[in-house]
This record gives sequence, structure tokens and C-alpha cells, in this order.
Amino acid sequence: MSSTICSDSSSAAMARLLPFQRSRNDPFHMRRSFSFGSINSNSTARRLKSPATVQVSLTTDTHARVIDGKSIAKQIREEISGEISRMNDTIGKVPGLAVVLVGSRKDSQTYVRNKKKACADVGITSYEATLSDDCTEEDLMKHISKFNDDPSVHGILVQLPLPRHLNEEKILNAVSIHKDVDGFHPLNIGRLSMQGREPLFVPCTPKGCIELLHRSGVEIKGKRAVVVGRSNIVGMPAALLLQRENATISIVHSYTKNPEQITKQADIVISAAGVANLVRGSWIKPGAVVIDVGINPVDDDCPRGYRLVGDVCYEEVRKVASAVTPVPGGVGPMTIAMLLSNTLISAKRVYNFK
Amino acid sequence: MSSTICSDSSSAAMARLLPFQRSRNDPFHMRRSFSFGSINSNSTARRLKSPATVQVSLTTDTHARVIDGKSIAKQIREEISGEISRMNDTIGKVPGLAVVLVGSRKDSQTYVRNKKKACADVGITSYEATLSDDCTEEDLMKHISKFNDDPSVHGILVQLPLPRHLNEEKILNAVSIHKDVDGFHPLNIGRLSMQGREPLFVPCTPKGCIELLHRSGVEIKGKRAVVVGRSNIVGMPAALLLQRENATISIVHSYTKNPEQITKQADIVISAAGVANLVRGSWIKPGAVVIDVGINPVDDDCPRGYRLVGDVCYEEVRKVASAVTPVPGGVGPMTIAMLLSNTLISAKRVYNFK
Repeated sequence: MSSTICSDSSSAAMARLLPFQRSRNDPFHMRRSFSFGSINSNSTARRLKSPATVQVSLTTDTHARVIDGKSIAKQIREEISGEISRMNDTIGKVPGLAVVLVGSRKDSQTYVRNKKKACADVGITSYEATLSDDCTEEDLMKHISKFNDDPSVHGILVQLPLPRHLNEEKILNAVSIHKDVDGFHPLNIGRLSMQGREPLFVPCTPKGCIELLHRSGVEIKGKRAVVVGRSNIVGMPAALLLQRENATISIVHSYTKNPEQITKQADIVISAAGVANLVRGSWIKPGAVVIDVGINPVDDDCPRGYRLVGDVCYEEVRKVASAVTPVPGGVGPMTIAMLLSNTLISAKRVYNFK
Repeated sequence: MSSTICSDSSSAAMARLLPFQRSRNDPFHMRRSFSFGSINSNSTARRLKSPATVQVSLTTDTHARVIDGKSIAKQIREEISGEISRMNDTIGKVPGLAVVLVGSRKDSQTYVRNKKKACADVGITSYEATLSDDCTEEDLMKHISKFNDDPSVHGILVQLPLPRHLNEEKILNAVSIHKDVDGFHPLNIGRLSMQGREPLFVPCTPKGCIELLHRSGVEIKGKRAVVVGRSNIVGMPAALLLQRENATISIVHSYTKNPEQITKQADIVISAAGVANLVRGSWIKPGAVVIDVGINPVDDDCPRGYRLVGDVCYEEVRKVASAVTPVPGGVGPMTIAMLLSNTLISAKRVYNFK
């Protein structure tokens, strides 16, 4: 059995997802983003059909191509950086992202630090409000309101989880929909669900999954796609995005009987269940493309005492699939790249900068 | 092969969908709503297990039970009428529905007339604004704004389609989300998509489909459900509703290859494609339940020159399915019943009437 993977650099959907232009000096940018360095398939099975089209034929006895999220995310950040330079040169403005951090959780502090660094690297100005664990809802709302009113702030991100005494839904709803770069506002999700409507922002992780597929030349239209998990932040919006690209979607969750029978029919599987090694090799159709969103800690002898693994039993699946994302280095780096992308989209909209 | 259909009168989901209580004098109300008069299955195969539980065993060589939407809708309208009487007796208020009709389309006039009559029958006060074909957007907006501000109006329905010179999206967005009894506002759809969020209103036709399943005792949780069609007003929200009830959903549409292979796996099929006789007997798993939303005109020798048929090839499917809705008399009567239900929900919310 073989799988054919074709790049489609003219995809309208891709243009919608990513507002920035690709390098004008590289008409074959799709090939570059294939990250050939990490392709594990038998090179004799790979052939170029035309300058803009790459086909990879894989047989089931070869290993899957590794979709190198780290490298693709780096490429995207470079493109964003280029766009921000152009914006600054043309209109003297740069995007601004405000991050609101409540409390002293170490992991949240690390995430916020990473986001600020990523902003700095591409030229986005970052703003921060740091509040104590016992801050009041009013305190927090005051900061959000200030960022809502600040014209140099184009995106606001409230780092989750919040301390328990704060009403998460109420606080997230206070973020202006025009600055909801997380894309979690129900109005954004509603527009994402509806044909003929456009969300202002697409949630970062599912947007990153789709971008990985696009930049790996995986055709989505007309394909069977199965999403494992139906969370508000990944599974559900990932399914909606796949459907917007005209895939036929199925959503598998904890009430699904025999989920492997459904995933086994899929050309594309996105797993966002949060269960280590849930998706086995036997769950996958030969030649399918598998995107692993899971980041699950499992006990390990290393000094830290644990290591991170995905939802996908990688060693099994890479023997069956045509392409698969690793954990770490797959979807993870894309999330922050998409946050930067959403912030740029927001600033471009505000300044009507094309 | 046989199918077991059990009623579950305590379903929390049903309570959410329909705010009104069922008759206190009829502990076996679920049985009554089975509309036994129209069950075509072999009566020897039908047995009662307990007072509140009905099982219908069907073999593939019997004909499917006909889900009698007309009778179920009548039952619902009676329940709504009872609730409105109770509301009027208790707080001296009744729900109000405003219908906005633009232009002189005969079909729209008929729909509006039917809605007003249905309102009158259950005790909902109806209000109407009738505007000419060439009315301006400002005129129309003024009427919507007036109804938005009127505390005796709990639901506003703009009859579609609107004349072409009017911006439908803009006008529908002008309806207060608290009076959006059609449930089409993106904020409602967003909440419908999200776990842990509740829409203010659920779109009437898909809500009617789910209500037909509930009142026919069809279990949804854990079942494979396939929706044919992905429109904003039926297919997509129907899939979201099925998922909220913990079905495993797949959505089939015009880009789906071999749709019959997917529908054939489903325990529940809802077809809302708008294509006459699309769903053949060979598309259906023996024992499945089939809900036909299509209302398609086909040429006929009758005086009118056409007759209305569903998406489902009824004569074929009734030999395979365990239950099926007819066209007409299936989903159609439920839509208007759900409009009345949504208007009642809105009034109850405003008056905090339990």
C-alpha cells in the first residue's frame, strides 16, 4: 500500500491561516518546509514530479516521515519577523502582546517567560501584568480592561490555570474579542463552526496542527480525518478546522466504543486526548498522517523522574503511518508560533496593513 | 439482526432541551409519545420490560417503526400550552414572539401565518412587522431595535430569505442574543460547540431532531451518529448536539468520498442534505434509526405538479432501519414546536419562572 503526499502551495486555506507572505526568493518554499533532513523514508521511493510538487511514496515496511515541528515553527517565526520588520519600516508600528500572569506557579512563569522571549525574537512588544495569588477579580479585571483600551496592545493572553477563587469563564470573556489571540471566545468558536463566517482568531494549537499538515504538503480536502479528543482548546476546534478544509471528520472521545475501528479508516489522525501511548500502531491505516498533540509525563529513571511522551505510541505508529509528528518537537513549537501569528494578524487588522 | 430501543425518561439532556414539565398524571408519558398507532413493527416482537421502559425488538425482515413527528409535535405543543397557562396563572405573564416579514413571497407569508397560528394555539402573544420588498436596511433595523427593547417580546424571528439588497448577516446580528430564538447567532453556536458552556437557544430543526430521538426512546450516548450535510442551520448544529449527548459523530458532505461506507456504520443517521432520495437502503446499517430532515420537491402528476420527498429513499430504508421519520410528518412539525419551546424558554428566563 502506498501514500501520495502532494504539496499545494497555492492553498487558499493556508493563506487564510497565515497572513504573512513566504520568502519571495524561494518559489519552492514548500519543499524547503518538508524538512528533508529528517525524512526517514526510503529515498529511492521519493521522487519529484515538478518543481512545485513533491511526492513521497511510502510502503508500509518503511518508517514514516517525521514532521519536524521545531524546524517548521522556526521557519514561521522567521516569516513573522520579516513581516514585522516590513510593518515597522512602512508604518512605524509593531504588534503588541499583553500577558497576564496570576500567582506563582512555576510552570506558568516558565510559559510566560518563553512567550515574552518568542515575542522579543520576532519584534513583538510584550506587556505583562503580574498579580499575586490572592488578587481580587476586580484587580484582574482592571488590568484586562486597561489592555483592552491600550491601542498598542493587539493581543491579550491570560495565562491559565487561574487560582480557584477566580471565575475563569467570566475573566476570559472580559478580554476584547478583537484581542482574543487565544481564539477561545465563544463568538470566535461559533464563527469557526459556521460556513461563510470567519473567526477573528483561530485557537493556536489546532491552527498549528493544520499548518503542519499544509507545510508538509498533506492534502486535506476530501480526506477522512479523525480527531481523538474533543476539548474546547484542541480537539473540537481541530475538527472544525479540518471540516473547513473539506475533510470528512469524525470525533472520537471517552464514550466512543472501539475507537481504533474509526481511527483505522482515517487518512489523517490528530490525537489530543492527553493519554500516554493511547494511539497504537494497530489504530492507524497504512500511509496515514498522524499529528500528536499529547504531552504526557510518564515515570522515568532520568534525574527529573519523568519524561514527556505523546498520545501516540511513536515506535509502533512510525512503522505504519506515512508521516508522524514527534513529541517533543512536533506540535509543541507550533503553538507559540501561532500565538505570534495571531498577534501579527490582529495588528495588521488594526492598522489595515496588507 | 435486532435493535433494542429503550426509553430514558430521566435524561438530563432532555430536561435541558425542553424546559417544560411533562404531565404529572402520566408517569408513563414516554410510552404515550411512542405513538404506537403508527408503529409498523411486528407486534409480537415488541415487549414491555417495565412501566417506564419500552423495548422494541426488530428484525431486518420487518419494516421500521415510523417516528410520528406530527403526533410528537402535537404532544409538545400541548405541554407548552400547559406551561404557559401555569405561567399566566402564577405571574400573569405570557411569552411573546415577534415575527418580521419583509416582502411579498407567498411561501414566507404562509410560514409566518402558520407561526402566528401556532403561537395563538399555545397562548404565546405574537407581534408582527411587515415591510415592503423595497424597504431600507434602516427601516428594518428600526423594527428589530423596537422589538429588542420591548419587554413583552421574548423572541424575534426574521423570516428568511430577505430581499437581496438587505445584508442578512448584519440584520440577523442586530437581533438581541437574548431574543435569538432561532439560535443562529454565532455566540449561541459557539456555546453549543463548547463543553461546559450552554447556548441560550438551540436552533429549532436540529433541536427537533434530537427531541424526536429522545421521545422515541433512542439512546444516543456512545452511539455512532452520522450527519449528512453540514449547513449552519441543520447539519452542523445537529452534529454538535449529538456530540453533546456523547455520540461519536461523523459529518458527511459533498466532498466526502463513498459516503455510504460511513453512514452504513451509524446507529443514528440524520440526513439534512437537501437531495431527494440520496440516502438509499444500502447506506443504512440494519437496525439503525434514520431522521430525515430533507424536504425536496420532485415532479409529480398531481395538480400542483410536484410533491415533497425527503433525503431518504423511504421505501428502501424502512426495510433496513429500526425506525425512520416520514416526509411529510416527521421533522417538519417539530421545527415550529421547537420555536414555541425556545420562546417559552426565553420568557421563563426573563421572568425567572421555574
